Amino acid sequence: MSARNYDVVVLGGGSGGLAAAFRAASYGAKVAMLEPAPLGGTCVNVGCVPKKAMWLAADLAERIGLARQMGFDVPAEPALSWSTLVERRQHYISNIHASYQQRLDETGVVRISSRGHLIDAHTVQSEDGTQFRAEHLVIATGAHPLKPELPGAELGGVSNDFFALQSRPERVALVGGGYIAVELSGVLRALGSEVALLVRGQRLLDHFDAELSDQLAENLRLQGVELHFGCKVEALRRQEGRISAQLHNGPEQALFDTVLFATGRGPNTRGLGLEQAGVKLGEKGQIEVDDYQNTSVPGIYAVGDVTGRVTLTPVAIAAARKLMDRVLGGRAEARLDYDNIPSVVFAHPPLGSVGLSEEEACKRFPSVSTYYSRFRPMLQALGQGEVRSLFKMVCAGEDEKVVGIHLLGEGADEILQGFAVAVKAGVTRRQLEETVAIHPTSAEEVVLMR
Amino acid sequence: MSARNYDVVVLGGGSGGLAAAFRAASYGAKVAMLEPAPLGGTCVNVGCVPKKAMWLAADLAERIGLARQMGFDVPAEPALSWSTLVERRQHYISNIHASYQQRLDETGVVRISSRGHLIDAHTVQSEDGTQFRAEHLVIATGAHPLKPELPGAELGGVSNDFFALQSRPERVALVGGGYIAVELSGVLRALGSEVALLVRGQRLLDHFDAELSDQLAENLRLQGVELHFGCKVEALRRQEGRISAQLHNGPEQALFDTVLFATGRGPNTRGLGLEQAGVKLGEKGQIEVDDYQNTSVPGIYAVGDVTGRVTLTPVAIAAARKLMDRVLGGRAEARLDYDNIPSVVFAHPPLGSVGLSEEEACKRFPSVSTYYSRFRPMLQALGQGEVRSLFKMVCAGEDEKVVGIHLLGEGADEILQGFAVAVKAGVTRRQLEETVAIHPTSAEEVVLMR
Repeated sequence: MSARNYDVVVLGGGSGGLAAAFRAASYGAKVAMLEPAPLGGTCVNVGCVPKKAMWLAADLAERIGLARQMGFDVPAEPALSWSTLVERRQHYISNIHASYQQRLDETGVVRISSRGHLIDAHTVQSEDGTQFRAEHLVIATGAHPLKPELPGAELGGVSNDFFALQSRPERVALVGGGYIAVELSGVLRALGSEVALLVRGQRLLDHFDAELSDQLAENLRLQGVELHFGCKVEALRRQEGRISAQLHNGPEQALFDTVLFATGRGPNTRGLGLEQAGVKLGEKGQIEVDDYQNTSVPGIYAVGDVTGRVTLTPVAIAAARKLMDRVLGGRAEARLDYDNIPSVVFAHPPLGSVGLSEEEACKRFPSVSTYYSRFRPMLQALGQGEVRSLFKMVCAGEDEKVVGIHLLGEGADEILQGFAVAVKAGVTRRQLEETVAIHPTSAEEVVLMR
Repeated sequence: MSARNYDVVVLGGGSGGLAAAFRAASYGAKVAMLEPAPLGGTCVNVGCVPKKAMWLAADLAERIGLARQMGFDVPAEPALSWSTLVERRQHYISNIHASYQQRLDETGVVRISSRGHLIDAHTVQSEDGTQFRAEHLVIATGAHPLKPELPGAELGGVSNDFFALQSRPERVALVGGGYIAVELSGVLRALGSEVALLVRGQRLLDHFDAELSDQLAENLRLQGVELHFGCKVEALRRQEGRISAQLHNGPEQALFDTVLFATGRGPNTRGLGLEQAGVKLGEKGQIEVDDYQNTSVPGIYAVGDVTGRVTLTPVAIAAARKLMDRVLGGRAEARLDYDNIPSVVFAHPPLGSVGLSEEEACKRFPSVSTYYSRFRPMLQALGQGEVRSLFKMVCAGEDEKVVGIHLLGEGADEILQGFAVAVKAGVTRRQLEETVAIHPTSAEEVVLMR
């Protein structure tokens, strides 16, 4: 059977796959992309985008409460038509789908609505048996939420199920202590659900600076989330139309309408024929890649969540573009630098971080200094809100190079990006201080830390 | 008559004066500060702080409208108790006053509630005749709003009068094209007033990048502000309890409840005895200073708005601290670097700028390149708002050093600070691009400009 020939074949139409395809096309390459699901992957369909939409709604709910305190004639806890919100959200997502389609049309990237699996290092086969051959094969199939193995686990959902909710659940258990558990519990609480956050370990966000993680826990409690550390879910069962959870160290009232597991994600590597093609996988099934996104097989590359490495959308996009710059654009040394990648957790208020936590810095450098700003943003003060901001800077060495900036507070999501540029450029504390503040903002507190 | 002796005497208790006093005290100096009005100067009492409070309220009003579109059961244009808002705002300000008082107590700075005037280069006299002698004299008396000279000018107010409003004016004329006129007109419109913005010139914000200034004008129109360029106010007169304006090139309906002039500010240098002491003043009455805040008289320094140089609160504060570091802290070269000072105009959405406009860059560098991002933020899209963001970057030279960043859009106020650090540190476009984006935010668009 004769195969169709391309320069690049991409498996997966998420952010990384699309970025690879479009960048390849910009170099004049003939590109095919295989993706059975709607384009945009986790980020656009069941991740960043709908999550941010729900976060924005939750943020509005909180601001409406503050507005009431400031003299606006609005209800303290306004009713929300969940279905209208979901409709607006999905409309936004369908516009993204349309813009991808337009870009496919403009760039000539051929999209195949099918799964693909590898026949050999240069051949992919779609579900209808068509074969696609290319010199370069990019695997960007993403990841999926995992459920723990426990009796009744099927009664619980995952983040994908959160996005399928058509109305507000009354009482929800979120299982997990990572950023997804934090984000979903904050959104649900702000939109009026009773929320219990069940965390197996003793803290939230293991990889973040411990002081900010503690403050985050306090903020969640202030927001009204029931927080249970050292809590283990042993089983779920149906009880009168609800879900009863058998818990070790959990809340007294363990009956929920909805249980959502946010207990980790696993790479989408099954059924792709990777093993047969000789692609080496790691312990968790992730594709092992070097610093240049090369897999163990020449001509096969992988980017994004399927590699298990810093599983963030912009990382997948940046890695994909660099890869194409290298293999098609003549930039032999192009690769993504995985240092100082900023990230944000959309809690209420959000938490942003770039560089090293204090703990990490102390392991790497003999001399570490820290600076802080704790304050109540003006909006909170005016609206009689209680939420405070905690900003922290970690410096290393005698010249006090800034090696970490950690922001918890209103606006942290927007404030961080510029500081991430500065940290990556290697600025010192002195350079931060020498920059004139912008008054009155939260961001100015970063250059005014003491 | 014997004088009281101090190390430092500060005239003025605004941001610059307070910063000078507290920094001096931190070096163990004996400090007296003369200020007849509430502490905090323009910024705290009739400037940045109450302005931001009103802006936050206006921002809430707009978000409530978006919230309604997203499914919240709130009125599209909620009623506002202006008096409650003003009460909350003034309570916030009184807390700042209290914190200053506490800091005076802690630092031992002596505050004299009186105007002061210079007897000689080292002696200041208060209104009751007490004399204060010091080696170092810091003038930080600020500035005040100016009114144009025209018939009936007394019928119009200035920004101070805006903050004295106890209820919402129905129909307002704002006269001016600078940031104060832009900010007040935006706030008043968002809070429900009919607003005509009367601009003598052909554009807003002369010193900002022209493209952003044009977009700002479009946004004001979209917000419902009537914008009139080339409009000259020739006279004001009373007419049936309202104010009738005689205009050249103005709106047809020139009858207003309130007319506010935002036509410039002048330094507070009258009656201070500066001329007698030999302090050189500039054409507009401002105190002339060198790069180290020295006036023409040794031992007399000036900081802040009274110098007419980059009249921003954080500039006054930074200049005051540097000055004290120099004269008391043994840092002989300490001075404020007036390059790359970021600033924000609190329009709806806000506008932030650091470095050179495209026009300025083209005058200074032979090779200038520009990059843009135009987009509709997610909240606007979800809430069916029409307001778009326009971000612009100006680069110079072959290495494309970033010499200007200009942001108009939601969050610009908070986004800019970190990029100001980066621009001041001399980053190139490449360094911006190499920083991984934070998704989904507005800030990421700055590192993704094309």
